[in-house]
Amino acid sequence: MSNVNRQLILHTRPQGLLAPGDLQLAEAPLPSLTDGQALARVKYLSIDPTMRIWMAMDSYLPAVAIGEVMRAFGFAEVIESRHKNFKKGDKVVGLTGLQDYTVVDASDKRGGFQKVPPIPFLSDTAFLGVLGINGLTAYFGMTEIGKPQKGETLVVSAAAGATGSIAGQIGKIHGCCVVGIAGGLEKCKWLTEELGFDAAIDYKQSDWKSKFAAATPKGIDIDFENVGGDIMHTVLERMNLHGRVVLCGLISGYTKDDPALASFGMVLVKRLRVEGFIIIDYMDRYMEAATQLGKWKMFGKMKDRETIVEGLEKAPEAINMLFTGGNIGKLIVKV
Amino acid sequence: MSNVNRQLILHTRPQGLLAPGDLQLAEAPLPSLTDGQALARVKYLSIDPTMRIWMAMDSYLPAVAIGEVMRAFGFAEVIESRHKNFKKGDKVVGLTGLQDYTVVDASDKRGGFQKVPPIPFLSDTAFLGVLGINGLTAYFGMTEIGKPQKGETLVVSAAAGATGSIAGQIGKIHGCCVVGIAGGLEKCKWLTEELGFDAAIDYKQSDWKSKFAAATPKGIDIDFENVGGDIMHTVLERMNLHGRVVLCGLISGYTKDDPALASFGMVLVKRLRVEGFIIIDYMDRYMEAATQLGKWKMFGKMKDRETIVEGLEKAPEAINMLFTGGNIGKLIVKV
Repeated sequence: MSNVNRQLILHTRPQGLLAPGDLQLAEAPLPSLTDGQALARVKYLSIDPTMRIWMAMDSYLPAVAIGEVMRAFGFAEVIESRHKNFKKGDKVVGLTGLQDYTVVDASDKRGGFQKVPPIPFLSDTAFLGVLGINGLTAYFGMTEIGKPQKGETLVVSAAAGATGSIAGQIGKIHGCCVVGIAGGLEKCKWLTEELGFDAAIDYKQSDWKSKFAAATPKGIDIDFENVGGDIMHTVLERMNLHGRVVLCGLISGYTKDDPALASFGMVLVKRLRVEGFIIIDYMDRYMEAATQLGKWKMFGKMKDRETIVEGLEKAPEAINMLFTGGNIGKLIVKV
Repeated sequence: MSNVNRQLILHTRPQGLLAPGDLQLAEAPLPSLTDGQALARVKYLSIDPTMRIWMAMDSYLPAVAIGEVMRAFGFAEVIESRHKNFKKGDKVVGLTGLQDYTVVDASDKRGGFQKVPPIPFLSDTAFLGVLGINGLTAYFGMTEIGKPQKGETLVVSAAAGATGSIAGQIGKIHGCCVVGIAGGLEKCKWLTEELGFDAAIDYKQSDWKSKFAAATPKGIDIDFENVGGDIMHTVLERMNLHGRVVLCGLISGYTKDDPALASFGMVLVKRLRVEGFIIIDYMDRYMEAATQLGKWKMFGKMKDRETIVEGLEKAPEAINMLFTGGNIGKLIVKV
C-alpha cells in the first residue's frame, strides 16, 4: 500500500474530444478514515460515454467541478474499514472516481457503493460490464421500456459497445429479430458470429442505409438508441407504427454542439416520455369523446371561439393563417 | 342546388407558405350516385395545420395527389341518399374535401363519415371544433397520454389554437395549473380571462422565456406540444423528471425544411413512444438485474468482450476511444 493517491483532476472542460491536460494527474495523500467510512483500493475503472457529459455540463448529475477528481464508476477492494457494512477484502462497485484509492462513506448517497453479488465464476471486471452499469442499463432499458415480444424486430445502435451488445442479446433471449448498427467489419462480425445477432450493419460503408433496410424487412418495433443524429433518424424512418424507442444515449452528440440533438438530450436527461399522437387512431371512440366534450360545453366548463372565413375560394388563404398566427380558436371556412 | 361542384384542386406542392395557384379552383359536374352512396352539401370546412402536411408529403395518410381535390374535414348535410344509413337532412362530418358537394360512400373507409351526435344547443360549426377533430385530439391526447393529475403543471403550445385551447381547458377540469404559450396579447388575454388558464405567455415578446420560467415555478409535468423547435425546447428544459410530452403537432416546421424537427416528425407521424432512460433510476434493483444477467452469462446465453487499457494515467485516452470507435465491448482501465 502506497502513501500516495494518484488522481485525475478535471482541469478544463473539454471542447470536442478530450485534449491533453483537460484531466491532469495529481498526487494526494491517502485519506484518513473517520467512523462510518472504509478505504478501498481501486482495481478497475469503467470507461463510459456519460463521463464526457459529466465533464461538460450539469445533466442528470451535476457536472464535475473544476479541480475535483473526475467521476467514474469502478471496482475496488476494501483495505481498511470503520464502516459496519464493509470489511477488509470486500469487493465493491460504485463511483470510485479516477484515482487509486476511494473512500466508501456511509453518508454518501451518491457514491452508492454496493458489495458485488455472490455469483460464482465471474471475473472482477464483469462487475463493471455485464453485471455492471452497462448490463443494468441494457436489462432495465429493455425490460421496462423496450418490452421485447417474440417475433418483433429490435435495432440496437452502438451495438458493439458495452451496453448495446448486452441489449441485443437480451432481445435474442426474448425471441426478437435483432439488428445491430456498428462501425467496422470486426465489430459486425463479432455481433453476428459470436453474439447471435441476426444482422449487423456497418454504418461506415456508404451503402449502409440500403443494407439496413434490407435487414429490417418487417420494419422496426423497438429501437435501443445509443447514438442519435443521422443514425437515429435512419432507424426512426423504418419504425413501425406505435414502436418504442429506448433513448439510452446520444453519443454522436456528446463531443459536439448539435442543436438537432439538444431536444432529444432533454428527453434523455430528464427521462421524459414523448408520445407521438394522431387522432385517427381514436376515431372509433368518437361518440365517447363527443359526449364528454358536449357535456363540458353545455355546462360551461369548455368555451370556444371561432374564426370563420367566408367562401370556398378563400380556403388557401385560410390555411396560411394557421402559420402566420392569423386566427384565434377554431378556423373554419363557410362554403 | 347548383349543377356545378366547385373544387379546390392540388396543382403544385407548396414551398413554405401556400402560394396562389398551389390550390386551383375548378368546376366539376355534380356526381351521380350509385347504390350505397349519398350526396351531401358541404357547409363548413375545418382548416387544420395537418393539411399543409397532406399537401407536401406522405405521412400518416398518403399525400394528396396532384390533380386531386384537396383533402379536408368538413361538415355537410345530406341532400340525396342511396345509402341505408343516411337520409336526406342528416348532418355529417368527415373528409369532405375542399368542395361544394361530397359523396358519402359506404365503401370509403377513409372518409369515415359519421352522423353528428344528438347533442342539443350546438351550432353546426361546433362539430368541427370542440366536438370535432380538435376536440377529439385534445381529449384523447390529454386522457390517453398526458394523464393529467390534480396539482400538476401542464403547458400547452399554440394554446389559442383550436386544439390547444381545448387541451388547456381539459387540464383545468382535471385540476392542473395550466400555462399556455401563444403569439400576441389578444390571444393571451383570451386564454387567461375567458378560458381560465393560470398564465399565458406571449412568445413574441423578447423576454418570454424568463416570464415562462416565472409562470412555471414547480417545473412542468405535461407538455401538450403543438409547435416544436425553439418553443418545444424551452418547454423541455423546464420539464420535471419523468414528465410526459403529448407530441400532437410541430407546426413551426410544417412550412420549412428543418432537420432538427425531422426526427420528432417521425415520432409524431408514426406515433412512437420515446422514453429517456438513465440507469440511476433503477439502482435499487441492482441485485435483481445482476442475478438475472449472471445466470444468463453462466449458462452461455450472454457473451461479453472487454477492451482493457492499463494504467490510471491512460484513462483520458480511453475516454476518447469511446468516441472514435476504438473499443469493442466493455472498455475498462486497469489501475
